[in-house]
Amino acid sequence: MERRVNDRPRLVVIGGDASGMSAASQARRALGPEELEILALERGTYTSYSACGIPYLVGKTVSSPEELVARTPEEFRRDFAIGVRTETEATSIDVAERLVRTVDASGTVAEEPYDHLLIATGAAPRRPHLPGADAEGVFGLRTLPDGIALNAYLDGRAPSRAVVVGGGYVGLEMAEAFLERGIEVTVVDGGAEPMGTLDADMGALVREAMQAMGASFQPHTRVTGFETEDGVVRRVLAQDAAYEADVVVMALGVRPNSDLARAAGLEIGPTGGIVVDRRMRTSAQGVWAAGDCVETFHRVSRAPVSVPLGTHANKQGRVAGTGIAGGYAAFEGVLGTAITKLCGLEVARTGLNETEAATAGFVVETVVKESTLRAGYYPGAEAVTVKLLAERGSGRLLGAQIVGGAGAGKRIDVLAVALWNEMTVHALAGMDLSYAPPFSPVWDPVQIAARKLAERMG
Amino acid sequence: MERRVNDRPRLVVIGGDASGMSAASQARRALGPEELEILALERGTYTSYSACGIPYLVGKTVSSPEELVARTPEEFRRDFAIGVRTETEATSIDVAERLVRTVDASGTVAEEPYDHLLIATGAAPRRPHLPGADAEGVFGLRTLPDGIALNAYLDGRAPSRAVVVGGGYVGLEMAEAFLERGIEVTVVDGGAEPMGTLDADMGALVREAMQAMGASFQPHTRVTGFETEDGVVRRVLAQDAAYEADVVVMALGVRPNSDLARAAGLEIGPTGGIVVDRRMRTSAQGVWAAGDCVETFHRVSRAPVSVPLGTHANKQGRVAGTGIAGGYAAFEGVLGTAITKLCGLEVARTGLNETEAATAGFVVETVVKESTLRAGYYPGAEAVTVKLLAERGSGRLLGAQIVGGAGAGKRIDVLAVALWNEMTVHALAGMDLSYAPPFSPVWDPVQIAARKLAERMG
Repeated sequence: MERRVNDRPRLVVIGGDASGMSAASQARRALGPEELEILALERGTYTSYSACGIPYLVGKTVSSPEELVARTPEEFRRDFAIGVRTETEATSIDVAERLVRTVDASGTVAEEPYDHLLIATGAAPRRPHLPGADAEGVFGLRTLPDGIALNAYLDGRAPSRAVVVGGGYVGLEMAEAFLERGIEVTVVDGGAEPMGTLDADMGALVREAMQAMGASFQPHTRVTGFETEDGVVRRVLAQDAAYEADVVVMALGVRPNSDLARAAGLEIGPTGGIVVDRRMRTSAQGVWAAGDCVETFHRVSRAPVSVPLGTHANKQGRVAGTGIAGGYAAFEGVLGTAITKLCGLEVARTGLNETEAATAGFVVETVVKESTLRAGYYPGAEAVTVKLLAERGSGRLLGAQIVGGAGAGKRIDVLAVALWNEMTVHALAGMDLSYAPPFSPVWDPVQIAARKLAERMG
Repeated sequence: MERRVNDRPRLVVIGGDASGMSAASQARRALGPEELEILALERGTYTSYSACGIPYLVGKTVSSPEELVARTPEEFRRDFAIGVRTETEATSIDVAERLVRTVDASGTVAEEPYDHLLIATGAAPRRPHLPGADAEGVFGLRTLPDGIALNAYLDGRAPSRAVVVGGGYVGLEMAEAFLERGIEVTVVDGGAEPMGTLDADMGALVREAMQAMGASFQPHTRVTGFETEDGVVRRVLAQDAAYEADVVVMALGVRPNSDLARAAGLEIGPTGGIVVDRRMRTSAQGVWAAGDCVETFHRVSRAPVSVPLGTHANKQGRVAGTGIAGGYAAFEGVLGTAITKLCGLEVARTGLNETEAATAGFVVETVVKESTLRAGYYPGAEAVTVKLLAERGSGRLLGAQIVGGAGAGKRIDVLAVALWNEMTVHALAGMDLSYAPPFSPVWDPVQIAARKLAERMG
């Protein structure tokens, strides 16, 4: 499959994960092997795995790394006639000559010509250069091998104290995974509350649940380095404190991995992501990009954003694959929707939070409303807190945050659809949502909040 | 509170349940007792109870009838300064003289003048006049006293075989309640499958779950009467069959209880419901109506419909109450959204089913897609089946049906918001919905179905 046949065009994909392999598969669905050659270059050994599943692997909810792999390189070759070259890194792109330079595990350098190129280089973890950061026991958690390495370390060393640096989604999921393994855990974060993509009042609910499960949270804390012993991490150092640790996970988020594109002269946006149009075309002829490495459009702020999530990567990959195969599809932007399950709580958000709304120039009205996830009289009615942000004057919904029991989180999708359609909280309050006693009070919690905010705004 | 004071206008409410008391409370929030006198007339003894909770009372999920009462007459008097006269039936309305004639439990007749009148007479059960229908052991299940009476009968007689006539939401909820009490149950229905508001292919999934739990289902069956012994029901008779029964529940649905309004000369629509405008005003000056007795607007079919649900009653009551108090609010119509939990399944629908779409003149494309409610590798990923209907050509979403495990049902609200905004399945497939492994595959089940249908439609 991997030798070039001159009478058919060739697609080269850089990066064998969600967006790259979605694009490749989609292109293959449209064009058979006699019409399009496809070669995917993957730096690592895995293709198409669920990065979102890594914390569950560490927490042992998922028992083996293979379960996180949607399709192996062999399956892509066999079922899709897609050539996959693993342990092969793209080192540069020559857009004038239309070729990619590569180096494989043995150090062999090659040039791969392309007619269509898809850049799907993903995201790189933010890892500040701190003294001791290379010590044994300090882990990132971006790739499946990262997760496997951490797991092996935990199994082998049985550490008793963990520090997680960064209290975002992955950081807190990891903190819970440590708790599930009986490891004491401290989360240190630069902000006042964990989950910085939520407003602090909602983040506080998450912190309380974490603390109730035995995790410790250190706010306003900037890590300055690591104390080691025989090359193994022992303490995490901050401005004016230190935290004992046998194992450390760095979870400070990611940035678009656009270095290769930048070096090739492609346009890079203000967020550091590759600039693409709605079809996922970059500024260079014949070059497409998709997934965590690109910059996309936020439908509420109307600003460029980088949102590293598998859902977008997957959709963008399909859009690019359709376009590469000569069809038309468009990626219509994001809302910043996200969800997680943490310490017995479901936590979700969509749209803009208060800080983001202010940055985008909105003046907002907000409501925070607690209600229940079942009729009051139906046994097991758990609490839910819904926060809504609306534009002053127009009442247009701008964002939503939900923290609550089982069934709370996925309600964020109702608000995401409302945002997508630029609905007002007034319209939201009047909508025909489903009701039965095992599912909600007569007014769904999201409508109770919308009604409250609408009433307040008149 | 109940004596008229001439210098303030008077609101009379006929019917002390969801819509009536919502309207009264809403009017009271806007106008104090010195500005508006409010008198509610209730035929029964309860106010503001959850009719949707009655099956759970019978199934003993809810332990006492009082739990289903949101507010008692005494609470309305004390907390809202709303006069409530229970066991008082309105016998006629004189719209020219602006008064309501009543009779109370003692047979005393009275006339109640009004400035504003709200008709909230609810729905009446469909009970065909069949031989033996008055036998002991045959129950309706519309009111809380119905539920209490059935419960007392079950506790006292400990019947072993039940027949439920009608396989809609309430019928099936009742069938499950019988199973939970260890009573053998047969559901007889006129259609091919239970849940006639779903298409038969989706109704079949519900039937299979019912049968797996031990219930029997008899399709295409019209009940012709009841065999009795000493005045107690013994068998349910159909065209060419008979079913042993110690207890029978009639659950053939309801019709708008608009007799009083009709007799008063108010306009009644083709569905038998009172015609109201968006503010819930009837054809008579100063007369408003809300809840199960009215006819409302279906946003997809654009036809008048009667949808007897507490959610609408509640919202319409608030709209009417706001209007009565001199404010402006509008009820923007319904989508036919409904949900229930049955035999371990969550079942939900919104918009039009195939029959309704055809009646409304739509030519539809449909998809039925099975997927899972969690990432495949996440433990406990239950199945869900999503059916979508879209308009041929435009791709506009017209309706949706969902049957599946925990977390399936409330996803109908995503589709309800999409319907409300007249979205296409193409747009739906591209939306930014939430994803994390404990909640869904990378593509949410509703988007998997939407994508499939969009692809098929091109």
